[in-house]
Amino acid sequence: MSLLATTLAAITPQDPLWRERATARIEQLTMPRWALGRLCDLAVDLAGMTRSLHPAVERATVVTMAGDHGVCVEGVSLFPPAVTPQMVHNFVRGGAGVNVLARVTGTRVVVADLGVAADLSALVAAGAIINAKVAFGTANLAVGPAMSRAQAVAAIEHGIAIAQQLATSTDVFGTGDMGIGNTTPASAIIAALTGTDPEVVTGCGTGIGEAQRQHKAAVIARGLAVNQPDAADGLDVLAKVGGFEIGGLAGLCLGAAALRRPVVIDGFISTAGALIAHALCPAAADYMISAHQSEERGHTVMLQRLGKQPLLNLGFRLGEGTGAALAMSLVQGARGLLTEMATFADAAVSTADQQAH
Amino acid sequence: MSLLATTLAAITPQDPLWRERATARIEQLTMPRWALGRLCDLAVDLAGMTRSLHPAVERATVVTMAGDHGVCVEGVSLFPPAVTPQMVHNFVRGGAGVNVLARVTGTRVVVADLGVAADLSALVAAGAIINAKVAFGTANLAVGPAMSRAQAVAAIEHGIAIAQQLATSTDVFGTGDMGIGNTTPASAIIAALTGTDPEVVTGCGTGIGEAQRQHKAAVIARGLAVNQPDAADGLDVLAKVGGFEIGGLAGLCLGAAALRRPVVIDGFISTAGALIAHALCPAAADYMISAHQSEERGHTVMLQRLGKQPLLNLGFRLGEGTGAALAMSLVQGARGLLTEMATFADAAVSTADQQAH
Repeated sequence: MSLLATTLAAITPQDPLWRERATARIEQLTMPRWALGRLCDLAVDLAGMTRSLHPAVERATVVTMAGDHGVCVEGVSLFPPAVTPQMVHNFVRGGAGVNVLARVTGTRVVVADLGVAADLSALVAAGAIINAKVAFGTANLAVGPAMSRAQAVAAIEHGIAIAQQLATSTDVFGTGDMGIGNTTPASAIIAALTGTDPEVVTGCGTGIGEAQRQHKAAVIARGLAVNQPDAADGLDVLAKVGGFEIGGLAGLCLGAAALRRPVVIDGFISTAGALIAHALCPAAADYMISAHQSEERGHTVMLQRLGKQPLLNLGFRLGEGTGAALAMSLVQGARGLLTEMATFADAAVSTADQQAH
Repeated sequence: MSLLATTLAAITPQDPLWRERATARIEQLTMPRWALGRLCDLAVDLAGMTRSLHPAVERATVVTMAGDHGVCVEGVSLFPPAVTPQMVHNFVRGGAGVNVLARVTGTRVVVADLGVAADLSALVAAGAIINAKVAFGTANLAVGPAMSRAQAVAAIEHGIAIAQQLATSTDVFGTGDMGIGNTTPASAIIAALTGTDPEVVTGCGTGIGEAQRQHKAAVIARGLAVNQPDAADGLDVLAKVGGFEIGGLAGLCLGAAALRRPVVIDGFISTAGALIAHALCPAAADYMISAHQSEERGHTVMLQRLGKQPLLNLGFRLGEGTGAALAMSLVQGARGLLTEMATFADAAVSTADQQAH
């Protein structure tokens, strides 16, 4: 079997028994019932994912996957494609947003080239990035498929392999992306999977105006009409209107799920990758944690499809893994409440019930 | 002059010049304009508060202030008052929610007794808590003033003194509270200050049902009718319907503002303290950061009055400083983006404008 097939076969849903055990534990902790709200929910999820009341989350790694997009020739972005490799260098030097927020939460940032349209071999040789390059950028999805089906599989399998490679040093994964123009394939993916009008799920990306946004939506509509992606086939959607880094992120999600480790999903692009993973294996969503609500207008539609509520809502529209890196502190907090908080009995604190006696 | 008077006189608004400098810096950073949203806003606030582009936030201290409430005899809470000192012991042992979340963000927790109705002298003697006890609990606000005006001043001045005492080891303060029954005075304070019907701003606290909530709102309405607090006089509101820990938190806010240091305001009770500080000196609000949206229904009215938007919304309804402790990672992130992120020029990354040439 292929790496993709064996990975899909290894994914099972969260374990309801461990969810119940975590719930019972949380109800004994020294606070009013469920008084830490979403962190309690998250603690139950961590237990269900890891089959443990002591879920490991200490070693967090955000994998920032980079790729370029042929659709940039259509004028869908404010920034030139040269920014993709420039930002890869910025990540490596530690000067980007994701580096800063990762330092705050003690998260490692690993950068992978899934399909940057530039020679990054010096960074690969220096061990500064992972080489998982499928090609030097995708083709223009407005006029034909962004990539072949074989390339789509390769991108996903690179993502799975990266998850496996990092597993020895990672308890919880985070996703991140870099790729000028990549809100266009991400919007195309959610439109293709759900049949939503591209106009509804196409946003302003790095900050284009309303006229350019409408143009971008029209480019996506053209791409969907030309390519006719099959909504029932995640690989077909990825190949026809996706991107290499989005495929890699889908693979990372699948790899994490197969390893039964949580994966914190960043914003719009990362959630597009998560949607491809979900299309290939719905149970993979059981291992996903939505880090934050993106400003990008299609993100809400994506999250609804995944059945996820984001943890943070800070008006981020940057990607890179910035939201995932910051949300790691909430994951650590959820684990902490499960493992470090005293119970009413431990701390000899009276419960609500005792008042009645 | 009294400590309160000198402190009020020392408080000035944020410096608009430093806000402008921070804004100019952020606009040069390697990301689309303001792409880290609320963290960019927060970075500007930190610069305006501290008059620096390198605002110190490394040493964070949450001060959890405890007090008891005579109004508990009216049956407003699910938990018995004995829980207040029990939880103080839990804080000291490190087993409470605030301890767990503070460990995640590297925040110190300092516990202060502002008015617990129990002898905590052993903890004071052991150096485990700060003794700032005004009295052994307030009087029942439903039948008369919760405290005298002199006690209200004493509680606030204790809070100011604690801020001053901790200033040598604290860059950013956080607030926290413990006091069974204290959502009742907190609701009474916002009702008194804004003239809002207690029914609208009285919530379920630790988890009372709808019938008990209506009873609690009626108790508050009775307290307001009996005491007639003067909405234009923050000290009068605190004395008539407040609490010792709420006065202490008001003092902590004032002390932080006078020191020009940020103070991260936790949930419902802490925001009631912040409202008293704001009533005494509106400019004090310039140094406040709202950590999170509480589940308690009156919190939104409080935040509107302060002109604050909370950073987090995780369904917390615990207090203790849990939200403030967790939000410290966002404060650290905001500082990090200001001081550690590369500019377009530093990183040789093309800007949006350069595409046009």
